[in-house]
Amino acid sequence: MMNVINYPERAQWNELLQRPVMDSTILEEQIRRIISDVAGRGDEALMDYTRTFDRVELPSIEVGRKEIREAAGVVSGELKHAIEEAQWNIQTFHKKQITRSEIIVTTAGVRCWQKSVPIDRVGLYIPGGTAPLLSTALMLGIPAKLAGCPEVVICTPPGTSGKINPAISYIAGLLGIDRVFRVGGAQAIAAMAYGTETIPAVNKIFGPGNQYVTMAKQIVSRNRVAIDLPAGPSELAVVADDSSNPAFVASDLLSQAEHGTDSQVLLLTDSRELIRQVRDQIERQLESLPRKEIATGSLAHSKIILLRDQQEIMEMVNLYAPEHLIIATKNFRDLAEKVVNAGSVFLGNYTPESAGDYASGTNHTLPTNGWAHAFSGVNMDSFIKKITFQEISRYGLHNIGDAVMILAEAEQLQAHSNSVAIRLNTEEDE
Amino acid sequence: MMNVINYPERAQWNELLQRPVMDSTILEEQIRRIISDVAGRGDEALMDYTRTFDRVELPSIEVGRKEIREAAGVVSGELKHAIEEAQWNIQTFHKKQITRSEIIVTTAGVRCWQKSVPIDRVGLYIPGGTAPLLSTALMLGIPAKLAGCPEVVICTPPGTSGKINPAISYIAGLLGIDRVFRVGGAQAIAAMAYGTETIPAVNKIFGPGNQYVTMAKQIVSRNRVAIDLPAGPSELAVVADDSSNPAFVASDLLSQAEHGTDSQVLLLTDSRELIRQVRDQIERQLESLPRKEIATGSLAHSKIILLRDQQEIMEMVNLYAPEHLIIATKNFRDLAEKVVNAGSVFLGNYTPESAGDYASGTNHTLPTNGWAHAFSGVNMDSFIKKITFQEISRYGLHNIGDAVMILAEAEQLQAHSNSVAIRLNTEEDE
Repeated sequence: MMNVINYPERAQWNELLQRPVMDSTILEEQIRRIISDVAGRGDEALMDYTRTFDRVELPSIEVGRKEIREAAGVVSGELKHAIEEAQWNIQTFHKKQITRSEIIVTTAGVRCWQKSVPIDRVGLYIPGGTAPLLSTALMLGIPAKLAGCPEVVICTPPGTSGKINPAISYIAGLLGIDRVFRVGGAQAIAAMAYGTETIPAVNKIFGPGNQYVTMAKQIVSRNRVAIDLPAGPSELAVVADDSSNPAFVASDLLSQAEHGTDSQVLLLTDSRELIRQVRDQIERQLESLPRKEIATGSLAHSKIILLRDQQEIMEMVNLYAPEHLIIATKNFRDLAEKVVNAGSVFLGNYTPESAGDYASGTNHTLPTNGWAHAFSGVNMDSFIKKITFQEISRYGLHNIGDAVMILAEAEQLQAHSNSVAIRLNTEEDE
Repeated sequence: MMNVINYPERAQWNELLQRPVMDSTILEEQIRRIISDVAGRGDEALMDYTRTFDRVELPSIEVGRKEIREAAGVVSGELKHAIEEAQWNIQTFHKKQITRSEIIVTTAGVRCWQKSVPIDRVGLYIPGGTAPLLSTALMLGIPAKLAGCPEVVICTPPGTSGKINPAISYIAGLLGIDRVFRVGGAQAIAAMAYGTETIPAVNKIFGPGNQYVTMAKQIVSRNRVAIDLPAGPSELAVVADDSSNPAFVASDLLSQAEHGTDSQVLLLTDSRELIRQVRDQIERQLESLPRKEIATGSLAHSKIILLRDQQEIMEMVNLYAPEHLIIATKNFRDLAEKVVNAGSVFLGNYTPESAGDYASGTNHTLPTNGWAHAFSGVNMDSFIKKITFQEISRYGLHNIGDAVMILAEAEQLQAHSNSVAIRLNTEEDE
């Protein structure tokens, strides 16, 4: 069960909130070898690793149109409907993030603007395994298509039949994903970074994954390809008080804990009574969970922290910078104003994290491991580049020319200054 | 002088546009040692490295208020005026990028929004050395302050007197930078990543630097702190035709070439005549440059490429993804529409790169080394996080609850489903 820490001293906070550190040196060597093998041998290496890791002989690396069409027949009407409802909300929220370019005259004759241009080729990694993350296909595929990325591909590991999860196929068809490949693990990341005969090299790789996938993304991001976010295990912090419903709070903590034994769960409160009730509820609700063992493992290193007041609570929240933050206190709107570091925030008694995981409309690909101090979750910006443009008239260059030349010379860059001088000293020829 | 390549075959393009690859393995080991030394010994290590690398005994690590005030007396009125003019334009352009949060009702009872929150603590690295980049202090300091980052610090190497460049001090005072430290190199990056007795640990590090600084930024970004951009030598591609002014084009190529011998310079054109004239002009203008030797070194590995038509030219531009792109053709507006991969674009005959380097208003911290395929240059987004919020009413949860539960169960995450069910099955108590 979760450890309870009462009124910890400020000096202990950093240690208390520390995330587990993985020693990844050995892992890195192993993943480097896979990456350079895929870079060198291409498709053949992909077939080999799939045979070894997924225990399946691939009929083909690419999922054909026919398999994607057939998936629509396998997915239940109920699931299709849920997918479309989530799609609508995610689309609605992300579409509003598209901003129009505006020309700004910074000074007479000097026109500057930012233009949002979609990234050419993006690769989405969708984990399979024990919990096939079909929702991730929605969360990454929808903004990629809304942004207008010309080529959007998915890599996802095959099941033992050699087929990929039919719901993922269905979503790929629904969203108009350009190509889908049945490859998972570090080998999929290597393929999207370097390209193979079948899989195109992309400019940016998105998506969660196990430690192999995560390490592969980190390695290829050093010199080859952009990635969405640095990764770490999923996290939830819940802020609650006397007014919160302990059964709801317990259900939220458990929903995070069932992700994996490395999941991080925190409850921050100023109420001893709530702690008692939540622990009670956790024990009760845990019993019937299919993933009880995983949740128990995660809870064992999770923490309930009793703090003096809401001020202390919000200070600790911002120091921890949780991926997900539920604020279930009566005055949740006041506390929401105080959030500085978090990935996504869930307000009130009727906003469970799972709403945002699937269907409220916000993105569920979020910064973990304290990266919320500096990173946003995936949003429309993640799929575009903002290119700046400037167009200066002869008059405009006269206007700013002196400043440019003086600054350039202060930096001892004479040629920079010359490029202005030569223009201003030339007679206008037309 | 620059190599001329006539009508290269498509199959050669990738090789032709290849950037130099640095073998950084040995460097990495050395930088790792500096970083862990600074992480362990703090200020003492900073004093030691400054003695070794900058050959100066530091009186203090922090630049005091007095030194900053005194800088105003040392900087010429002319330079101050140029700084303020640049400041105005940079502020005007960046201020327009601030977007307001809007609440989006994705479906009845489900309210979602994005809130832009400034990053708590940011560190700006401003190189000193042969060309003290005071313009970089403006380009990073202005958006950091506009974004409202609560703590903005600068690290910049000391001169042999132990003082930092007075223009950088002056800018720090002008912009209201919170603290300034006289430390440079990998040790400065380590200090901002780990914190020392004097220098606070920051959440994100910005700024250019030599290969030591660059490698240090890359290392600390793996698990400690965010960085602005992956780095590489500065680059310029110029697109020109018969209508372009060869003297202007030459001056632009030279302004890029003087940065360093590793600078990348490309001229893409469909005009043989222009090539002849530009080469002529380069030879002529090169003579009088103080940094002639550096420029000559850079030009030796730079390229002039003659292509069949503007379509080919723009395809090559987008394949190369230059940091800076000048389009000096008659129809520059048409070609601007075709730019997909570039950091910042300069249009027409009167828009030299140096205008954007200093004073047009756009940012000069831009993606190099092909990263413009996936990265934007530094802009207001670089200093904020977009945190998502959602507030769902009981009615709203009824609305999306089924979709959430069905999707959660399709992912075999029962506890996720439960967190909705338990709320919907509980009687509303108020």
